[in-house]
Amino acid sequence: MANDGLPRPDNGLTRRSLLVGIGAAGGAGAMYAAMGVLGLAPSKDTAPVRAVGVTPPPAQYVPPQRSDFSLRGGTPATVVVLGAGVAGLASAYELGKAGYDCTVLEARDRVGGRSLTLRGGDAVTELPALAAAGTTPAPGGTGETQRVSFGEGTYFNAGPARIAQWMVTLDYCRELGVPLEVFVNNNASAYVLTAGMSAPVRARTARADAYGYISELLAKATDEGALDAHLSHADKESLLDFLTQFGEIGPSRAYTGGERRGYRVNPGVAPGTELGAPPPLTEVLSQGLGRMLTMDAGYDQAMPMFQPVGGMDAIVSALARQVGAGRIRTGTRVTGITNRPEGVEVAIEGGAPLRADYCVAALPPHLLARIPGNLGADVKAALAAPVPLSAGKLGLEYGRRWWELEDRVYGGATETDLDVGHIWYPSHGFHSERGLVVGYYNMGQDAESYNALPHRERLRRALAQGHKVHGEKYGADLLASVSVAWRRQPHIEGAWVRWPSLGGFTVLQRPAGRVYFAGDWLTHLIAWQAGAFESARKVVTDLHHRVMKEG
Amino acid sequence: MANDGLPRPDNGLTRRSLLVGIGAAGGAGAMYAAMGVLGLAPSKDTAPVRAVGVTPPPAQYVPPQRSDFSLRGGTPATVVVLGAGVAGLASAYELGKAGYDCTVLEARDRVGGRSLTLRGGDAVTELPALAAAGTTPAPGGTGETQRVSFGEGTYFNAGPARIAQWMVTLDYCRELGVPLEVFVNNNASAYVLTAGMSAPVRARTARADAYGYISELLAKATDEGALDAHLSHADKESLLDFLTQFGEIGPSRAYTGGERRGYRVNPGVAPGTELGAPPPLTEVLSQGLGRMLTMDAGYDQAMPMFQPVGGMDAIVSALARQVGAGRIRTGTRVTGITNRPEGVEVAIEGGAPLRADYCVAALPPHLLARIPGNLGADVKAALAAPVPLSAGKLGLEYGRRWWELEDRVYGGATETDLDVGHIWYPSHGFHSERGLVVGYYNMGQDAESYNALPHRERLRRALAQGHKVHGEKYGADLLASVSVAWRRQPHIEGAWVRWPSLGGFTVLQRPAGRVYFAGDWLTHLIAWQAGAFESARKVVTDLHHRVMKEG
Repeated sequence: MANDGLPRPDNGLTRRSLLVGIGAAGGAGAMYAAMGVLGLAPSKDTAPVRAVGVTPPPAQYVPPQRSDFSLRGGTPATVVVLGAGVAGLASAYELGKAGYDCTVLEARDRVGGRSLTLRGGDAVTELPALAAAGTTPAPGGTGETQRVSFGEGTYFNAGPARIAQWMVTLDYCRELGVPLEVFVNNNASAYVLTAGMSAPVRARTARADAYGYISELLAKATDEGALDAHLSHADKESLLDFLTQFGEIGPSRAYTGGERRGYRVNPGVAPGTELGAPPPLTEVLSQGLGRMLTMDAGYDQAMPMFQPVGGMDAIVSALARQVGAGRIRTGTRVTGITNRPEGVEVAIEGGAPLRADYCVAALPPHLLARIPGNLGADVKAALAAPVPLSAGKLGLEYGRRWWELEDRVYGGATETDLDVGHIWYPSHGFHSERGLVVGYYNMGQDAESYNALPHRERLRRALAQGHKVHGEKYGADLLASVSVAWRRQPHIEGAWVRWPSLGGFTVLQRPAGRVYFAGDWLTHLIAWQAGAFESARKVVTDLHHRVMKEG
Repeated sequence: MANDGLPRPDNGLTRRSLLVGIGAAGGAGAMYAAMGVLGLAPSKDTAPVRAVGVTPPPAQYVPPQRSDFSLRGGTPATVVVLGAGVAGLASAYELGKAGYDCTVLEARDRVGGRSLTLRGGDAVTELPALAAAGTTPAPGGTGETQRVSFGEGTYFNAGPARIAQWMVTLDYCRELGVPLEVFVNNNASAYVLTAGMSAPVRARTARADAYGYISELLAKATDEGALDAHLSHADKESLLDFLTQFGEIGPSRAYTGGERRGYRVNPGVAPGTELGAPPPLTEVLSQGLGRMLTMDAGYDQAMPMFQPVGGMDAIVSALARQVGAGRIRTGTRVTGITNRPEGVEVAIEGGAPLRADYCVAALPPHLLARIPGNLGADVKAALAAPVPLSAGKLGLEYGRRWWELEDRVYGGATETDLDVGHIWYPSHGFHSERGLVVGYYNMGQDAESYNALPHRERLRRALAQGHKVHGEKYGADLLASVSVAWRRQPHIEGAWVRWPSLGGFTVLQRPAGRVYFAGDWLTHLIAWQAGAFESARKVVTDLHHRVMKEG
């Protein structure tokens, strides 16, 4: 999945791919049976589909509240939360609503985990390059440090960068007062460049040609009676009417281009000059446009998407403020997790161990798997099961927004099958002097090959690729750059994970003694902040129910 | 055009429809011949198409500058500009750069013309209802006055509301420092409702089903050899690969739905529940989705689009500031335009006539046609030729953003073939308490039937239509509303115009003596602010060249 170049960088492993991984091991039936036991599979007697397509909310999340204790007894417990990423912070935030005494331990020197927004003055230190793909970074070693020299106002969302409308992440933005703006996930004016093309074309042009020829072919087949076995007379009429509009084809059924392709000279006082006739059918078909033109067809990528104003870390910053700085200990590495009869003991590097009634372990599973303790062999095996995957991102700060001024591209992405994957243009700060372009966002083998390089080499290689789309100006006016190789980020060591089998996924939905596990990796929203939030809500609910019951 | 319900409300008459109107009278060949004389038609020997699809700028606009006079002689002239809409303000702004002494006369009590943004405290007075479609409003009469009671921060762009990336309007935003944000012109989560549907469906669902069945049909026809006359073996392979991705169809070629349709229960810790199987092919084909699914396929409607932060009138306000309040006389109705040997004399109601070296007449043509003077019979006939068209818009201020909270729709539009046309959700202020929904934006006969009603009746009717999409909540939490019928707006009297013949269009590109004509109606960008800007640039250039030549 990670190296197939699928245009879903934020969720290289979503539900579908999770299922694929699971299916390979046990088959979908086995998975559903297993999940049904845990109440995870959708019930057979779900509510009838409302034609209007409104998604009724699932069983409503009810955050723990102080009043729960006065009504039903018990007292808020102490909780040590491992990891100040989205899952950890959200857990502490939700537990805090009812007065739980939470302490959050974070090995890095900042909160947020993969929700990392870089600005001028930041430093990014990497682990040494991996000896080989799939190996574990050498412990204790240190690789290159990049100093970020962006100007005032420039930021780079090195991790998650966009939020879909339906995701719970938006609810947290509302609750926390994090202002939102549109993230342009698809731009008709941006470019497409595939191996089948001699030069990039605007997405609008590629789309018009693909839709036009598809419509021409289907209309011709319909006219020639080839679909008479499948279509009634009325169906054919409706289909031809649809194709006429969908492909902008005329009564002859031939696709000959049109204004949707774009203009060479824009209309104004004069009528403008259209781009002209499309390439021949054979050429368009050979361009491999299927992936490029469906990048926003999916449920999690459809336009519009959203981003917090000023940087994605506005969400984790707001969570951390709510939790309270005094409850978050950064620079604190966990070295042991031990269930005791009366609570959990968490050992940390260079300090006395912490004791709490419960623990929420919200670190990446491959890191948790390395921490000694007594969680049990099945839990240990489950934690070791998910495979951390590679992704990389490069931020390029330019002193001139040439993509707006010269290309008339305001936000969105150029989709390529080059090793850079996508080139993203900023969805904010339009018309300001500086702007940040994402020079690559790649995964799998593409990411691994870039990530093995020092930053300078990554930059050189990415600029050469971008030159194929934008020419000389891609190398000019460049002020600063920074790249992040997620497999080489200390205390993270992966962009997200893949589950090769179902077992561990289900095992870790339950606590190991007093230790609960939380993270996007325990949901069907892997690689999305929404997954971390959903997992945190589940764990908080489970833990609170237990406290309410056990007192 | 105006009554065909085409989903291009901002440009009911673009290049295409202008040509259609022209073609009906003289044929495209005649038009091109006529326009070639004026240098308006595209040259035969245009630059070769750049494969990259970058539109090279047309002959660059060079604004008049003070230094032009020191270099080439002459002195800045006095200019009286009729109309403080976009064309008039842009003309005065550009002429002002070189020191031209401009006075702008505006009959309304505010600048901006159709670029009208309404806020709490505004009043909207209409002319009496038209006796019949196509008639002229009774002069002097006054219809209903609406007092706008929106809360702080709520605004309603009653005229233009969106800007395409390629339009010159964005250059003026940059030059004038007007901040921009994304306008969501298409939202996969919004709804589609056609006469062929029993209930609205999400746009994503309608799109997935249409693309899925198209792909299924074309793949089957390809498999069955029906396209062997049109496709090589390699073409067929490429086509099937494309269709597999485009329609999300499997090896059996059957479209059976999938995650693109949407979820009944969103994925989270559990895998989520998809909406389920699509309706049968016949049902999808009968839904008339062609127009709905191509609303943003056109060059002028493609995503992303843009809007000024805080209201569209930020542009005209910035222009007016640059021109200078002292140079703009609102509440000043022009009653005569007379060419004299030494200049132009403009008579106004209740005041002494103004004299200037030149005049830029930037009023709607149907209003100019009524003003006495000595412009000549051909000019008078040309001004009377364009037919003013109807459009109407209704703003609904709600006290609760139910579309975000319950429908998870953040911006964009529900497309219907109801008489309301579109229902737009705000692209800004996400998660704030209040929000403004555009309850209708309709044209032609739909607009005329609404516009004939008092506001209360328009509102009642629109709410009943919106109820078909959104149910009870469409009538709840409504705080305030205002509607604008553009044919009934004093001193405007039309949404935009249609040219039934070419003659007048070409005649008015030239000055009538010392009187120049400017407006979107003299371009191939009718109904767009960009047209007004382009026309202003042309007129300013022509006028300045003349002054430079004549001294």
